[in-house]
Formats: sequence, C-alpha cells, structure tokens
Amino acid sequence: MRIAVDASGGDYAPYEIVKGAIKAAQSLKDKGVEIILIGKRPVLHVQAGKHLKKLNLSIVHAPQNIEFHEHPVEALKNKPKSSIVIGTMMVKEGTADAFVSAGSTGAMLCAAYLLLGKIEGIERPALGSIIKLTPHAPALLLDAGANADCRPQHLVEFARLGNIYSKYVIGVDKPRVALMSNGEEETKGNKLVIETHQMLKTVPGLNFIGNMEGHDLVHNKADVIVTDGFTGNVLIKAFEGLGDSIIKIRQVGQAVNSASHLRGRALLADVGMGHMVKGMDFREVGGACLLGVKGTIIVSHGRSRAKAMMNAILMAKRTVEQRIPQLIAEEVKENVSSVTV
Amino acid sequence: MRIAVDASGGDYAPYEIVKGAIKAAQSLKDKGVEIILIGKRPVLHVQAGKHLKKLNLSIVHAPQNIEFHEHPVEALKNKPKSSIVIGTMMVKEGTADAFVSAGSTGAMLCAAYLLLGKIEGIERPALGSIIKLTPHAPALLLDAGANADCRPQHLVEFARLGNIYSKYVIGVDKPRVALMSNGEEETKGNKLVIETHQMLKTVPGLNFIGNMEGHDLVHNKADVIVTDGFTGNVLIKAFEGLGDSIIKIRQVGQAVNSASHLRGRALLADVGMGHMVKGMDFREVGGACLLGVKGTIIVSHGRSRAKAMMNAILMAKRTVEQRIPQLIAEEVKENVSSVTV
Repeated sequence: MRIAVDASGGDYAPYEIVKGAIKAAQSLKDKGVEIILIGKRPVLHVQAGKHLKKLNLSIVHAPQNIEFHEHPVEALKNKPKSSIVIGTMMVKEGTADAFVSAGSTGAMLCAAYLLLGKIEGIERPALGSIIKLTPHAPALLLDAGANADCRPQHLVEFARLGNIYSKYVIGVDKPRVALMSNGEEETKGNKLVIETHQMLKTVPGLNFIGNMEGHDLVHNKADVIVTDGFTGNVLIKAFEGLGDSIIKIRQVGQAVNSASHLRGRALLADVGMGHMVKGMDFREVGGACLLGVKGTIIVSHGRSRAKAMMNAILMAKRTVEQRIPQLIAEEVKENVSSVTV
Repeated sequence: MRIAVDASGGDYAPYEIVKGAIKAAQSLKDKGVEIILIGKRPVLHVQAGKHLKKLNLSIVHAPQNIEFHEHPVEALKNKPKSSIVIGTMMVKEGTADAFVSAGSTGAMLCAAYLLLGKIEGIERPALGSIIKLTPHAPALLLDAGANADCRPQHLVEFARLGNIYSKYVIGVDKPRVALMSNGEEETKGNKLVIETHQMLKTVPGLNFIGNMEGHDLVHNKADVIVTDGFTGNVLIKAFEGLGDSIIKIRQVGQAVNSASHLRGRALLADVGMGHMVKGMDFREVGGACLLGVKGTIIVSHGRSRAKAMMNAILMAKRTVEQRIPQLIAEEVKENVSSVTV
C-alpha cells in the first residue's frame, strides 16, 4: 500500500507534516505501507533523508504549493506541479492508494472532483468527520463542509455514504443513522430536513432512527449523523473551538500551578472527561475522509501537527484496506433507484 | 412592574417553577416587582400560600395546561384558560409587563404571534439566547429556533434585533455583530449567508464585523451572533448537551470521589473552566427572549428548575426595565427603508 502525504500543505508544513509521516512510518514498519512525502525535495531531504533507508518512506518532488488564500480552480490550473495536484494525480494513476493533505480544503475538494472525478451515481461527495463525544463511541458526521447548500437527495446520499464508512472503517455492525434537526419529531426541521426525513424512511438497508438534536451528540444516539455541509461545518468547528479552549485552559493551569494541573488531569481522566476533550480535539481524529470520489482522499485540519498527521495517515490506511471507494461504487450500482430518488 | 410566570409549564412544574418564583421574589423584595404565578390556584396555594403576604407574590388561576406534544395553534384555540394563553393575554392587556414560561416553545411562539402580534415592520421575531463561553463576555445568539427557514432579510432583521438587545440589556456599547458561517471570507457560506453578508454591510448603525466560524464562539469575537433558527437551535442544544455532560461528569466524580471532586472543582475554577461550564448551562442563563413581538416574552428551557426560573425572571425584569419592545418599534420606524430591503 502507498499513502501519499502533502508535505507542503498546512500551517505547520513541512516540519510537523514530515514529523507525523515519520511517526506513521515507524508505527507501520514492516506492514507493507509506503509513505510518500510530496513537496520540495531538498527541504524534505534535510529532515527525512536519514529515515529514507530505514523506513518505508520516499520523497516525490513538488516545486509548487497552493496557498490557502488562492482560488481553488485557478490554483489547480496555474500550479500543475503543486503537491495537491501531484498527490491527487498519483491516486488517479494508481501510483498511490490514498492522498492525505492539510492544505487548502477548497483546492483538495476541487482536485478530487476535477482530477479523480465522482463515483458514478454519486452527485455530491461529502466530507465525513469522526467525532468522539462519548467514550468508546466514535460517530461519523457528514457533510462536514463540502456542500454548503444541499437538496434532500444529497442528504440521502450522505446517509448512504456514511453508512458504508461507519460499517467498514469504524466497524459498526448496523450503523444507526440520524438526521440532525431542531426537534425529534419528523415534522420538525427546516424544509430540507423535513423532506429528507421522509426520503430516508424509504431507503432500503439503512437503519434510519429519525431526527436527532444538538444535545444528542453527547448521548451516543447515532453512529452516522447526517446534516448539510453548512450546519455540519459550523458544528464541527464549534466543538473544535471548545476542545481547544479546554486544552488551553489545562495548559494555563499547568503553567500557573503544575501540581493542581496534574491533580486536575488525573481528575478529568478519573471522571471520564478525557474522552470528551479528545473527542473535541482534531489532533486525535486526524482528518475527514472525502466520500464519493474515485479514490481515498483525507482532508486534514490546516492546523495539523505531527500527531494529527500521523492519525490522518493511519485513517487513510484503514480506508484503503476497506476499499471504501469500491464499496461505494458497488452499493450505488445495487441501489441506483433509491439514489436517484 | 409585574412579571407573570407560567407555573404549569415545564418538566418540573409546578414545584420547581414556584420555588424559582419565590427565590426571585425574595431577591427582588422591596424593588417594586410583583411576581404573578399562573396555574392551578389550589396547587399553587399549597406551596406559595405562606409567602403571598410576605413577598410581592400573587396567584392567577389557570385551570388548563398546554402539553408539549399538543399542536400549538389548536392547543391555543382549545385551551383559552391555559396558563400560556392567560399569561400572554395579561401582557397584551397590560396587567403584566412580561411573561415567563418553560412550557411548549411552539405554543409560546404562536401565542406571542397571534395574541400579542408582531411589532410593525418586523417580519420574523427571533429567539435571542445568551451564551457565555468566554469569561465576562456573554454573547447573544439569534435566531435560537423560532425560524427554521429564513431569507436574507430575516437574518438582517435578527441582526438589528440583537443589536438593540445587546446594547440595552447586556450593556454592550457598540455590539460587534457577526454572521455565523462556514468560512471567514465574505464569499464563504451557503446562499442564505452569502446574500445576507452583502446586505448586512449596508445596514446603517450596525457594527457588522463579518462572518464568524464555529470555533470563534469561544474566542469572544462577537457580541451578537446572527444565524438562521435551524443552525442556531442545533448549536445552542449542542452546547447545552456538552454542558450537561460536563456537569454530570463532575457529579459522578463527586459520587465516586468527593475529595478529588472538590480538588477538581477548585481546579476548574482556578484555570477558568467554570465559566465555560456555566456558559453551556441553560440553568445559568434562564431563558431566551422573543424579540420583535409587542411585549416581553421569555421562553425558558423545558427542563428548567428553580434556579433557571429565577434567572429567567430576573432577565425578564431587565428586559422590561429597558423597554426593549418600545426601542425595537422606534428603531424600526427610523430605519423602515433598510428593514424592508
């Protein structure tokens, strides 16, 4: 298996990205997984050079880099030698099985749509983000931000994509699929949600458990949480912000009073709050998987450091092992009728 | 000043509601505020009877009660002697200056629209909910759930309503008004948000600071957070759920290990986490104010106990003191042109 990593993408590139890739290569040693760093060879060689022989690690030169502020489509046109274009093309050509990047999400999405293309029958690929607000129960929320405006059939598609990912990557037997709404009753919601609810009830092979509300997120009510990319993105980032603050607060505690911090950390663990902090910490999750395109694309947080990148690479490995794009393609073929409701 | 309280509404009515009203009456003793309990007189008399003389507290009989599952409009028609109808009518007739209820939000909204009516020039009254995720900086989020489907001009209305409430009730000099979105740039958002952003830039007298993202909620970026009632409701409830869990976790900690709980509580306070828990705890805030109707209506959480009700009553007092409905009416008159964009 070959996993390509964008060593130029993200706020802490290349140093933290390379560091995370090395950690991943170490933890995957002798597991037949090659990690390919894509970026400026001379720079990468300085940091990773000495590991290239010992670890299953290699470098592919990408002289260009797409910045966050650039217009995605134009950037892809103007920078054919950028790490994002090269990494995505490697997946397309089969020289890599997955591509992980903490670079511009917009550019990543466009590259995936334009270069890899959507799986036949899929209208709107979605970003599936794993949240862990309850212990031992990671849930998949999608769309986490790929589609700000959605129609009911798109949300139904998200449900089907999430169902597959939850089943095969997260390992949930019969994923409970819920629709995020402002009320539990099927009459509650905005127009989009009310229409989607009626459609989801009719999807064969989907364990649709109805609407869920914001407070249900901490109650392990569902394994797959379906929502439009606008609401999903706002929600994911809200949790992220809270996670950051709690972590910062603990760091302040540490600075101010190391002893009380240690007591506090012990307490937080004691009473089970550790999982909640972790669940709100994108570093633990690693990245969101773009579901519905012809290939495995993991979009990591722009602020990803080594730990987040390592986790994103491990997530990519699991996704490739489970042949998610193929499973989606097969599932769509089987259910064309209900997809194109 | 007279504040009517729905003693029949909410999961813990009447006992906790009455208890909260008594606490409020005690804290408002000799401040010229009469608190009127609306509910089944015999029941209320048992609990509140002995306080009626000592405190500025009275009872108005309401033999009927609207349940959460009832259809709002029908319930209002079929139950003219319900606490919600009587309380709202008292505000309309001026025998009460405000009405506070933890009963059916749907019924409360319908009662306010149908019995009190909207302020001239206001198309969509909104629920303004105060969130405190940063110390010393409560922010007003609206719409918290009154309007699941919105058009840009509605969000502009929310911004104007929130601006007034933040200025006069929360006491912010020049409230920073932000639009919740999935990206900071004005090109980011769903269609609704992108159009709204352009309109908000043109509203005179509004300190519009642009889009904010979910993670900005903990960074005291804005004083007024504008969003549609669907997103707002999902967000508010998500924080509520997290607040509940953190509180529960601490209670578990207490049960398991009282010593570590005390240490932990001290630590959480030390390092400033107390405010965050409080900010996510609806008991501290009390209720959401329905802005844009002809009267002061406070919608409390269905799970409100005494503390939440007391805080909701104190919130009602501040809202009445500041003559918010009148200020909104005046402001709308002055700016009819921009309201009816």
